[in-house]
Amino acid sequence: MNHLSGSNLYLALLHYPVKNKDGKAIASAVTSIDLHDIARAARTYGVGGFYVVTPLEDQREFAGKIINHWIGGAGATYNPDRKEALSLISLKDDLEKVTDEIRAIEDRQVSIVVTSAQGAPGQLGFGEFKKALKYGNGVYLLALGTAWGLSEQFMAAADYRLAPITGKTDYNHLSVRSAASIILDRLLAGDIE
Amino acid sequence: MNHLSGSNLYLALLHYPVKNKDGKAIASAVTSIDLHDIARAARTYGVGGFYVVTPLEDQREFAGKIINHWIGGAGATYNPDRKEALSLISLKDDLEKVTDEIRAIEDRQVSIVVTSAQGAPGQLGFGEFKKALKYGNGVYLLALGTAWGLSEQFMAAADYRLAPITGKTDYNHLSVRSAASIILDRLLAGDIE
Repeated sequence: MNHLSGSNLYLALLHYPVKNKDGKAIASAVTSIDLHDIARAARTYGVGGFYVVTPLEDQREFAGKIINHWIGGAGATYNPDRKEALSLISLKDDLEKVTDEIRAIEDRQVSIVVTSAQGAPGQLGFGEFKKALKYGNGVYLLALGTAWGLSEQFMAAADYRLAPITGKTDYNHLSVRSAASIILDRLLAGDIE
Repeated sequence: MNHLSGSNLYLALLHYPVKNKDGKAIASAVTSIDLHDIARAARTYGVGGFYVVTPLEDQREFAGKIINHWIGGAGATYNPDRKEALSLISLKDDLEKVTDEIRAIEDRQVSIVVTSAQGAPGQLGFGEFKKALKYGNGVYLLALGTAWGLSEQFMAAADYRLAPITGKTDYNHLSVRSAASIILDRLLAGDIE
């Protein structure tokens, strides 16, 4: 795994504990296109690292095969840009191992920021978080949920809860790939002219 | 196809004329996840309509099967939110049929805005376009290219060329799904706090 130095924002895509359609906590399957799209966005916006987290060993194996194809296999020769993005990915079996690793790299505490399509009291605004990333000394891990989103219990235990993305309608069913891209653009893009 | 009234921005995903890896003009294959992700973003941001354009009949058939599954088939019962997004899609064999249809709906000319990962002289800034959409009377069709992007000839013939998305690094290889989501957020989201 490559770390981009100078970034105080890390990304984690969680496959547990997430909700299924009925709100029950499950471990979801790894989706290949999530790894590609989110790694490309993470690389574009200079995120410190991108962690793919699942407790299921076969799912880590599956994700590892995809990553290795593009980093060291035929994919690396075919598309070096994709290699550069996917080399940001690190596979972990739980979030504690992620925060342990970031703490060791950055030599400071890591705050966990969760994301959700629903708002909640005391949520962190995009502008506020953008300023903290630009001017503050903190290190943040942005946790994105797959399937029907992060479990409520997990979200309640996080340090911060980022405001939901509001579009222009009351429909808020973006893919996790779209949500990750929009969040990184809102937090890390320079001034847009 | 449903049209969201009150929107002066339409979206088209082009599978021709686009470039392959070597810069040659090709017709690309339709990708299921493009339809889902971009339709969900289009619905979230209240885009007037989402056109999927390909001259290849088998590709339109393939796209039609996906859409019908989620609009009228088992998918519609399983996930009504997805139905609402995918019902924004209309399949066309060329862009002229798209602009003809929009002109008939809106009863005025349609300006074609192309997007690219590369900048060009005279390009349209995001802020400028956002203001035109909010305060102007124009109707715009934002054309997104699949594969390695829209052909240079096609881009040169468009009315406007939108500025590329710049992240925080010199890496600019976002998926078309990520790019579409970020562009809609930059153009159509309200004030972000």
